[in-house]
Amino acid sequence: MANKVMAAVAVAPKKTEIRELDMPELTPDSGLLKIEAAGVCGSDWPMYQSERPGPRILGHENVGYIAKIGSEAAKRWGVKEGDRVALEEYLPCGHCRLCRSGEFRSCQATDIFHNERAIRFGSTPLTVKPSLWGGYSQYLYLHPSTVIHKISNHVPAEQAALALPLSNGIEWAMIEGGVKSGKVVVIQGPGQQGLGCVVAAKTAGASCIIVSGLTRDEQRLRVAKLLGADYTVDAEKEDLLERVKEITGGEMADVSINVASGSEVTIKNAIEVAKKRGTAVFAASNKKPLTSFNMDAVISKHLTVKGVRGHSFDSVEMAIQAIESKAIPLAEMCTHHYGLEQVDEALRTVGGEINPGAIHVTVNPWS
Amino acid sequence: MANKVMAAVAVAPKKTEIRELDMPELTPDSGLLKIEAAGVCGSDWPMYQSERPGPRILGHENVGYIAKIGSEAAKRWGVKEGDRVALEEYLPCGHCRLCRSGEFRSCQATDIFHNERAIRFGSTPLTVKPSLWGGYSQYLYLHPSTVIHKISNHVPAEQAALALPLSNGIEWAMIEGGVKSGKVVVIQGPGQQGLGCVVAAKTAGASCIIVSGLTRDEQRLRVAKLLGADYTVDAEKEDLLERVKEITGGEMADVSINVASGSEVTIKNAIEVAKKRGTAVFAASNKKPLTSFNMDAVISKHLTVKGVRGHSFDSVEMAIQAIESKAIPLAEMCTHHYGLEQVDEALRTVGGEINPGAIHVTVNPWS
Amino acid sequence: MANKVMAAVAVAPKKTEIRELDMPELTPDSGLLKIEAAGVCGSDWPMYQSERPGPRILGHENVGYIAKIGSEAAKRWGVKEGDRVALEEYLPCGHCRLCRSGEFRSCQATDIFHNERAIRFGSTPLTVKPSLWGGYSQYLYLHPSTVIHKISNHVPAEQAALALPLSNGIEWAMIEGGVKSGKVVVIQGPGQQGLGCVVAAKTAGASCIIVSGLTRDEQRLRVAKLLGADYTVDAEKEDLLERVKEITGGEMADVSINVASGSEVTIKNAIEVAKKRGTAVFAASNKKPLTSFNMDAVISKHLTVKGVRGHSFDSVEMAIQAIESKAIPLAEMCTHHYGLEQVDEALRTVGGEINPGAIHVTVNPWS
Amino acid sequence: MANKVMAAVAVAPKKTEIRELDMPELTPDSGLLKIEAAGVCGSDWPMYQSERPGPRILGHENVGYIAKIGSEAAKRWGVKEGDRVALEEYLPCGHCRLCRSGEFRSCQATDIFHNERAIRFGSTPLTVKPSLWGGYSQYLYLHPSTVIHKISNHVPAEQAALALPLSNGIEWAMIEGGVKSGKVVVIQGPGQQGLGCVVAAKTAGASCIIVSGLTRDEQRLRVAKLLGADYTVDAEKEDLLERVKEITGGEMADVSINVASGSEVTIKNAIEVAKKRGTAVFAASNKKPLTSFNMDAVISKHLTVKGVRGHSFDSVEMAIQAIESKAIPLAEMCTHHYGLEQVDEALRTVGGEINPGAIHVTVNPWS
Repeated sequence: MANKVMAAVAVAPKKTEIRELDMPELTPDSGLLKIEAAGVCGSDWPMYQSERPGPRILGHENVGYIAKIGSEAAKRWGVKEGDRVALEEYLPCGHCRLCRSGEFRSCQATDIFHNERAIRFGSTPLTVKPSLWGGYSQYLYLHPSTVIHKISNHVPAEQAALALPLSNGIEWAMIEGGVKSGKVVVIQGPGQQGLGCVVAAKTAGASCIIVSGLTRDEQRLRVAKLLGADYTVDAEKEDLLERVKEITGGEMADVSINVASGSEVTIKNAIEVAKKRGTAVFAASNKKPLTSFNMDAVISKHLTVKGVRGHSFDSVEMAIQAIESKAIPLAEMCTHHYGLEQVDEALRTVGGEINPGAIHVTVNPWS
Repeated sequence: MANKVMAAVAVAPKKTEIRELDMPELTPDSGLLKIEAAGVCGSDWPMYQSERPGPRILGHENVGYIAKIGSEAAKRWGVKEGDRVALEEYLPCGHCRLCRSGEFRSCQATDIFHNERAIRFGSTPLTVKPSLWGGYSQYLYLHPSTVIHKISNHVPAEQAALALPLSNGIEWAMIEGGVKSGKVVVIQGPGQQGLGCVVAAKTAGASCIIVSGLTRDEQRLRVAKLLGADYTVDAEKEDLLERVKEITGGEMADVSINVASGSEVTIKNAIEVAKKRGTAVFAASNKKPLTSFNMDAVISKHLTVKGVRGHSFDSVEMAIQAIESKAIPLAEMCTHHYGLEQVDEALRTVGGEINPGAIHVTVNPWS
Repeated sequence: MANKVMAAVAVAPKKTEIRELDMPELTPDSGLLKIEAAGVCGSDWPMYQSERPGPRILGHENVGYIAKIGSEAAKRWGVKEGDRVALEEYLPCGHCRLCRSGEFRSCQATDIFHNERAIRFGSTPLTVKPSLWGGYSQYLYLHPSTVIHKISNHVPAEQAALALPLSNGIEWAMIEGGVKSGKVVVIQGPGQQGLGCVVAAKTAGASCIIVSGLTRDEQRLRVAKLLGADYTVDAEKEDLLERVKEITGGEMADVSINVASGSEVTIKNAIEVAKKRGTAVFAASNKKPLTSFNMDAVISKHLTVKGVRGHSFDSVEMAIQAIESKAIPLAEMCTHHYGLEQVDEALRTVGGEINPGAIHVTVNPWS
Repeated sequence: MANKVMAAVAVAPKKTEIRELDMPELTPDSGLLKIEAAGVCGSDWPMYQSERPGPRILGHENVGYIAKIGSEAAKRWGVKEGDRVALEEYLPCGHCRLCRSGEFRSCQATDIFHNERAIRFGSTPLTVKPSLWGGYSQYLYLHPSTVIHKISNHVPAEQAALALPLSNGIEWAMIEGGVKSGKVVVIQGPGQQGLGCVVAAKTAGASCIIVSGLTRDEQRLRVAKLLGADYTVDAEKEDLLERVKEITGGEMADVSINVASGSEVTIKNAIEVAKKRGTAVFAASNKKPLTSFNMDAVISKHLTVKGVRGHSFDSVEMAIQAIESKAIPLAEMCTHHYGLEQVDEALRTVGGEINPGAIHVTVNPWS
């Protein structure tokens, strides 16, 4: 193994450059992952455009093979060199009340949104040693807090890199939204997270899945149907509320899931489309306070509104099981693949600047 | 028994008059209640001020003795003449999916907010026969759909009339909000509904109960403490968020419950005061869309927001059990009692026009 | 309409005879069902063999068309003459705590196992007027307490008569057992109830469904596979525990469901086959106390054991939705159809005296 | 600090001897606890009588001060030298699916009942270095997997040592049993675990708590009343079923909790005493298969039966909160205190050989 690692480092807003970084020295409780594929997430886009927090390697939907592993880590994680794994982005402390109760994604140690000193794959800067925190790199440092999932060798790498987007769908639709057999679900936004919700809803036995998007989402909506959507709605050409009313005979939806990054009308519709006693799940934020919100409808319809983030260990296991089952045409979601030198292109694709209609984009740092 | 019934009929905005109405003829599946006490609810106030839907008898927190009962009704309800009962306001169909699943309060037949032809105690007009639908009357018609709860003779009538407000507290704090042993709860609004939440939270074992109100609520906040609040906050003089931060050592609340009829800042605080992974329950609506709402906080804190309405059969049973136990100083809540000729005064008290600091107000139509 | 009704009346142990009964007079709150198909349930067999409680019409899995309906009933149930409906067997009071909380199947009024005077379709004797309580009859009396579900005209009658067996599967596997996406389920007993559990588990997204039966169940096990079972086990030829260990790589089952009428070894296996923290659901009783039970395994594996009975309104709605979807090859379950004169044969088929391998048996009283 | 540690080592069945052991050398991720008090648990008794697995220090209900701590451990656990903590007995791996989902008590690494090589406080032999695994010792080794809870200095040591018994009560009664406001609970067995259930049930708002014991438990039953029991039953002199029927007006119990080490009649009563749709929780095993079990009652009453073990992180936090609140007369439970030289006496007390009526017994290794 070389003692240098090639990585695409985000050095300035919307700019990565290939750098040669040192191979980390390992302690008995850490390891090294040879990256096979790193998915590009919508949340990479704002980070890619941001000035802070200094140079860093993006990429947090990581799949690869264990290249090296300390004796202690091997025992703890139950893996050995050569094993294939998918990682969560979180690096939780493991000891706080949230970690001890299965809610490690909310642990202070990994929560970069509420804790400046938190660490996490795909966002920690190079200055935090040993620097290899992101997936757009040949190797990734396996910190002792890494959350590891095994995944079968038979799965194509870019599908394996769907583990996190699908787990989000399972968490948001099934676990938080309560989608199960017989439920009517409306999903706003046919990107990879929204399509993850479609897969989850279908797997959970939803009786009717309606997906809405924009006119430019035509191809994504077509994929939504292949994945199990019963109806798709072009919300620029059709009135979503009217369509749902028509499809459901006026009953409206048991669960609505908003994964569109969110104009106010989308959020308004998410509330309106939910039936009495229903649930509206919000996963996408536009980061600004809304200038209108119909709390009276929330009360008079007796709704449950949930803000959601990320996935649990269980939802990632369920996602991997679904991926390994080969029962879902996931290849349809895998639209774009790039090499290390094309990371800017990969990010601009997910950001919507190029390649409209892209869904799941991966970086293979060895090609 | 006389064949005329004296009742206070709401005939115009903010005006009732005493009328003599016909005693109804009963079918085997209906009955007649001799009203002992009818509580005045905050929701009576907008109805009292409204022009529509024509003359009607208000009053839906009703307690009394079975005066007459049909053979079929006696069998179904398991009661006989002379039994003391508390009624729910709902008159559900009993046969729809919601009724069959324990959610009868949302049944179309009783939902006056979404169905113009719905019937319900305390709001159905005189034109719907046999007219005796409200509690500010000597007798009330026991429609076959009546939801009945037995209550012990030993309870003072005005405390018995707390069955519904307390059941709301149990439903909103305990059942919907998930308050249980060890939880920190913030309750905004120390009216009878808010104090019902205090009683519920205390009964459920909450470790810290914080109640906020306005400067004019001084007396209500004092009662909150008697009922189990650990801290009270005058939100006009103190910063609620700062106080909760201080009290909880920065942890904030597991559950916030908004039963203040709601300026926007109150709603904003309800969201801000909830900790990561917490729950914010909204029971009070100002009927207007909010002009600002921090959905980003809901998402980034992974909150559950619940709009709630009314009570379930179970929560009313639990409320009655709490009332019968005599373990709670409920007499402190019973601040005002009126006769039939003083119904306008009773309503204006609850509306806040007179008698500031009033909590639970009852009408005894025989005094 | 004739004023006589032909019905197969159970008059002595294992003996029915065709009798001509009076057409009932209807009140405004009752109705009359023209039976299209009545399913034969395993629980009919002990009743058919029993001496008590006097002559009665069996048959409680009933589907048909509304032949007559009182004005009040039409309004309450939302149906009119000519509508097609499936009935639950329960005749609940509608007013007790259990009924008001969605648990009407446990209502005292319909619980013939704990209340001698309870009434219920398919078991109430002729002496309780108007006698037409069972489905092996041209017409059935629609008592005011009837629990009604609409069902589409396009469904073949014998599949429509699967509403209750499938709802049992949904209730036991999905709602009580918690089967959902990714779970491993073992179902003991491939009769119509067990196959109902297979359908439910499949619909709910179970990742692995294992069904065990006896050697004589070969054909039923074949149908189990058509309905979604991943593995079937002949428990007389193979060791169920070893097979499950092998299939699951030693993990064992998340949920076991016992719908085999139960030798002690079956019950022992139901406990043994469940993994640590798993659930074992028991639906079938042999009516005798067990002479051995490994409570220590229940404790040391931290298991949940559930005794279950019947279905909820929701599970019947979900079953009908599944039937109407045409997505499941339910025709494979419908093995035997009989006319009114062949009710004894139908019952002996379900009792296992004739036609081994039968699954769902229906009576069409008009053929 | 001396470099030798005095400990009571269990060397043969029912025999401990004081030995001088080496002070462990610490790594950055471990620490050392100066034991203040170690509670004696009923489960120590069988281990104390057993030959295997070789000499070891018993004692797993441990409270003390951090004497030394590695830099890494200090950061992970959020503690420093001098902090007072209570420990769980578990030493979970932190990385498996159970650990990651909040169920670390079932982790293979700590499950000494299903895994011979598992480690755990109070049962791991001296041969596993650094030997100081039990609380009947001046110091305890804080392994990197230790589960730590802070506890206030103001709490008397022997009450602090109630953290685990009370957490069991909270876990079994409240979390597993679902005891909450308004529920009727029967607790069989007034030892420290049973009384922990009383405290939990009271805290959760149970409306009626009935505790049964034997004639020799008279004093314990008296303490049960001080802790919140409404009724106590001497099951040798009174018929438990009859008493519960009488107290509840025939309704019977929502939840029964069996923490008596269990004759068959006790287990039979645990099932009989539960009402229709109720829950029976079993925490105590007699380790032998039962020779009779009424599964038919489980089914016909639609019961949930739960085998339970130990506590979750959350229940220990709730227990400590209850202890710190000073609201419960826990001093009444703390009946016996011993020094290190009296560990045999302490164990024989809990085993029932001496000091009948003892409840919570602690060892203070410095006295």
